[in-house]
Amino acid sequence: MPVDASLLPNLRNIAARLRIESIRATTAAGSGHPTTCQSAADLMAALFFAEMRFDPAHPQHPLADRLVMSKGHAAPLLYAMWAEAGYIPRERLTDLRLLTSDLEGHPTPRLPFVDVATGSLGQGLAAGVGTALNARRIGSDYRTYVLMGDGENAEGSVWEAASAAHLFALDALCAIVDVNALGQSRATELEHDMDTYKARWQAFGWHAIVIDGHDMAQIVAAFAEARATKGRPTVILARTLKGKGVSFTEGKPNWHGKALKPEEADRAYAELEAQMQPETAALPPIPAPPAAPAAAAPGQMPAPDYRIGDQVATREAYGTGIAKLAGVDPRVVALDADVKNSTFSERFEAAHPDRFYQFFIAEQVMIGAAMGLAARGAVPFPSTFAAFLTRAADFVRMAAISGVNIKLAGSHAGVSIGEDGPSQMALEDFAMTAAQPNFTVLYPSDAVATERLVAEMATTPGPAYMRTSRPKTPVIYPNTEQFPIGGLKVLRQSEADCATVIGAGVTLFEALKAHEALAKEGIHIRVIDLYSIQPIDAASLIAAGRDTGRLITVEDHYRTGGIGDAVARAVAPAGLTVTRLAIPEIPRSGKPDELIDTYGISARAIIGAVR
Amino acid sequence: MPVDASLLPNLRNIAARLRIESIRATTAAGSGHPTTCQSAADLMAALFFAEMRFDPAHPQHPLADRLVMSKGHAAPLLYAMWAEAGYIPRERLTDLRLLTSDLEGHPTPRLPFVDVATGSLGQGLAAGVGTALNARRIGSDYRTYVLMGDGENAEGSVWEAASAAHLFALDALCAIVDVNALGQSRATELEHDMDTYKARWQAFGWHAIVIDGHDMAQIVAAFAEARATKGRPTVILARTLKGKGVSFTEGKPNWHGKALKPEEADRAYAELEAQMQPETAALPPIPAPPAAPAAAAPGQMPAPDYRIGDQVATREAYGTGIAKLAGVDPRVVALDADVKNSTFSERFEAAHPDRFYQFFIAEQVMIGAAMGLAARGAVPFPSTFAAFLTRAADFVRMAAISGVNIKLAGSHAGVSIGEDGPSQMALEDFAMTAAQPNFTVLYPSDAVATERLVAEMATTPGPAYMRTSRPKTPVIYPNTEQFPIGGLKVLRQSEADCATVIGAGVTLFEALKAHEALAKEGIHIRVIDLYSIQPIDAASLIAAGRDTGRLITVEDHYRTGGIGDAVARAVAPAGLTVTRLAIPEIPRSGKPDELIDTYGISARAIIGAVR
Repeated sequence: MPVDASLLPNLRNIAARLRIESIRATTAAGSGHPTTCQSAADLMAALFFAEMRFDPAHPQHPLADRLVMSKGHAAPLLYAMWAEAGYIPRERLTDLRLLTSDLEGHPTPRLPFVDVATGSLGQGLAAGVGTALNARRIGSDYRTYVLMGDGENAEGSVWEAASAAHLFALDALCAIVDVNALGQSRATELEHDMDTYKARWQAFGWHAIVIDGHDMAQIVAAFAEARATKGRPTVILARTLKGKGVSFTEGKPNWHGKALKPEEADRAYAELEAQMQPETAALPPIPAPPAAPAAAAPGQMPAPDYRIGDQVATREAYGTGIAKLAGVDPRVVALDADVKNSTFSERFEAAHPDRFYQFFIAEQVMIGAAMGLAARGAVPFPSTFAAFLTRAADFVRMAAISGVNIKLAGSHAGVSIGEDGPSQMALEDFAMTAAQPNFTVLYPSDAVATERLVAEMATTPGPAYMRTSRPKTPVIYPNTEQFPIGGLKVLRQSEADCATVIGAGVTLFEALKAHEALAKEGIHIRVIDLYSIQPIDAASLIAAGRDTGRLITVEDHYRTGGIGDAVARAVAPAGLTVTRLAIPEIPRSGKPDELIDTYGISARAIIGAVR
Repeated sequence: MPVDASLLPNLRNIAARLRIESIRATTAAGSGHPTTCQSAADLMAALFFAEMRFDPAHPQHPLADRLVMSKGHAAPLLYAMWAEAGYIPRERLTDLRLLTSDLEGHPTPRLPFVDVATGSLGQGLAAGVGTALNARRIGSDYRTYVLMGDGENAEGSVWEAASAAHLFALDALCAIVDVNALGQSRATELEHDMDTYKARWQAFGWHAIVIDGHDMAQIVAAFAEARATKGRPTVILARTLKGKGVSFTEGKPNWHGKALKPEEADRAYAELEAQMQPETAALPPIPAPPAAPAAAAPGQMPAPDYRIGDQVATREAYGTGIAKLAGVDPRVVALDADVKNSTFSERFEAAHPDRFYQFFIAEQVMIGAAMGLAARGAVPFPSTFAAFLTRAADFVRMAAISGVNIKLAGSHAGVSIGEDGPSQMALEDFAMTAAQPNFTVLYPSDAVATERLVAEMATTPGPAYMRTSRPKTPVIYPNTEQFPIGGLKVLRQSEADCATVIGAGVTLFEALKAHEALAKEGIHIRVIDLYSIQPIDAASLIAAGRDTGRLITVEDHYRTGGIGDAVARAVAPAGLTVTRLAIPEIPRSGKPDELIDTYGISARAIIGAVR
């Protein structure tokens, strides 16, 4: 399948043009990374124009091979490739980095040929694991290629992804490491020590091929070997030179992240044009992917089936919910990090083992793979303890930038988990997720709400997070109740209400207890279940504040970035303020009820705040 | 140096007692992880009572060998070891997990023998890299041991730490992997595939020894071999059985995280006591570390040396500041992730190369090693782009739980970085750090404030974060100005002020521009530099709000978890609300000034909000 040797000059000429365009665009922008484009240009010329199967007019074709540019600072190279393929008008390449252009400094999915945003190094391979798993999900033989820098091999997330790709035997995944030996501030740790790179990748179960990344024949042969390798993924470790092709940048330090000055660029163009070779035949056209079958429309998830008063932890209802959802929506997949028996995602595995992916204790690749799956049409539900989602905070950040359709769930939130202690208690999960302006953030209090919100998450585009709780809580809603995203529920109200208490999860039940105790004394409070923290129902909160005079939030979360701050932001325009009950300090191990009381979020604390 | 073979029965008997106490404590607590203690008991008996040098009466001895219990769920084993050594009264072990006890579900530094909190798997080895680097810093030959689970080898952070330990040739570091083959929810990925474990660790440059983790002679010999290995770290890969020593738990699934019932525990004690062997001689006492020299008192950092109006980026002043600080305080060290030329930590490296640690692009181990260094008396300043600190968010969380004295700095925050685009813009760094209730969070606006706050960070105990900016900003403070933590500066005020604008970093200068423009129209605003976001000067903010009637915050951060929320929390008790200008959506690439204006945090936006 490799191209005929007579066509190698064509590929070399493409590489020279890619270098020229990378320099031209960054020089026009006055910033950017031309030299990292230069090192990878030969690899990418061969990949795009003699290996990959895709439709240049339709980058999102469901069965097209994927390319993840993990070394996102080589964005100008990626843009030049799509210009060479005809998708981007060549004259637009110099709009690089303008506010008016989608050709951003690092690639984002504003561009249809970008599956996930890159630019935070070490994330692309995890996304590639996801796009490769998606091929298996839809029964396609499309392949995934990930171009990585050498420096990013220092990121642990790369080795999580490497391990997962081996585990899943992803032979449709091919990583290409551009070993140009120069990092941002100095030489890389391993420089051109190709033997150590090879030993590491092999130890993680990959077929590893070391090549000269500027020898077009070796490159073409390596891609063919990768394609022929079955049962495991392949990494092409390419020895390259940063700044390749231009005498004064090739292999030279201190060129990282610097655009060439116009006069330097002119010298570079002359050198690169002089490298052009005669072509004896035309390259064959890029092979087209097969026609994609029409996607089946998802069905309606069955209604919840609980009785008022049943004691059911929301984490358990979550597991039930995602399993039911997957029964009516083939796009839904679940991902675990060896806590399926705590998050109850084991119910999904039992019902749909072919769509359940076990990543073991590796949260970064779990989220990264979910991003890749989501980018290719799956609706992934990755879940773990909410505390350990922080391990993947940078992936959460990039998922937001990517706008991908991932549905995170975190269990065991807050001090209400009890004896395991602070390392297992998520108390900053809302701060992490709600900080991202396009994240939907949900916090159901009972099993009915949980199942309904699982369905809402799946049908609401974009990234979302659901927090679930460890303790069992009573079912308080009828099975017919609906929970639109952006809403809330007023559970107790009277005309005599002197305050509104806003809780969710375990604290909602403390608020209900406080309501009952105070009512006996003739003190009436309104109680709100704030199941949707972002978006938030500002109008209802303001109305409650005006009606009752006072707003009190109570949450099993630290003071910053949670329910209190969200409500305060919502009601501030009406001149209303909020009294916040939240976890004020690093908590200890203890029994859940003791902790809830000790840290001031119990019914007793609410009663105190009302008085 | 290994103990005489005649003493192996003593060690076996200690191991049996450690198993008994681990079961007894977890059964008393009614929860916890006895079986993971059982698998590691032989390893820990040998390590603590025939290998390590420490003072059981003085766990924090500066020259004592360190043990990091990375598999923190084996906390009862650790507590039993310290009871066996005489530090904890044996009868206190059954206080495990009580709110009234420091014997928490997972170890925290509330206990003097715990350097860093563990329980989030995959972090301990990074901390061990830090304690081992600290030995080198103080010229000690103390050794560091890290007990890891096998499941946590899936965490990428382990491979970051493995790579760093090799890079620094830390032969005083010894990792022990308890390969018991059972994870939480199922068998581990690699089960007892010792060859693959060995290949991975060797590929990362470690000396790897595979042993039977229940064969006391092999264990003792492996520790001796580790001690004799020079120039690289050693890993002991110990094949073990979860639940070892008790017939109905040994090697059995479904015992993870379950305490034995009292009747089961009684059967276990009987089985373990039956394994006790006759002892023919007494173990030698635990060797004492050498006397520690008195620490030199740090000196006073020289005053800043700028002129009003100088254009200096705060990131640059940060680099200057930490280099100056290190000149007067030998405890100060700096850590980088290959961005020293952007954060300006290269100035520290130039002045103090022996205290500068280059981790390449591996933020988790950079922060984790800083935690280990801080736990042993260093004052570490790890820095990178603020966006990439999110990569280590779980380490930040555990640093807060640990209360360690780390001083994070993040540069290139906000849309003001410009063309590189959203992947490089930290817009949630305050949400991440200020969520932790014991974090100090600082945001200097000029070079003088930056240097002063570097010094304040070093003298204020506990974890801290400083945000620095990419663009140059004018020096506005005299070199004599002081910046106490928890303070703010009122830069413009008059009796006619109709609003207070609160900014920091790049937005402070937008507020000053707005002040000037409005003043020309006879509209007067107060301008506050909120350089200390946590703790925050609530009294001054409330006073300003009352004086001027309106509070307007403006920040180069998303709406959640930043300056607006912090000010709103501070002034809410006085019934005051805040108008917030912040980045409302995922931003794009563009020129800094364009972005500041497009996303509504420019002088123009402030003027609009005031009107």
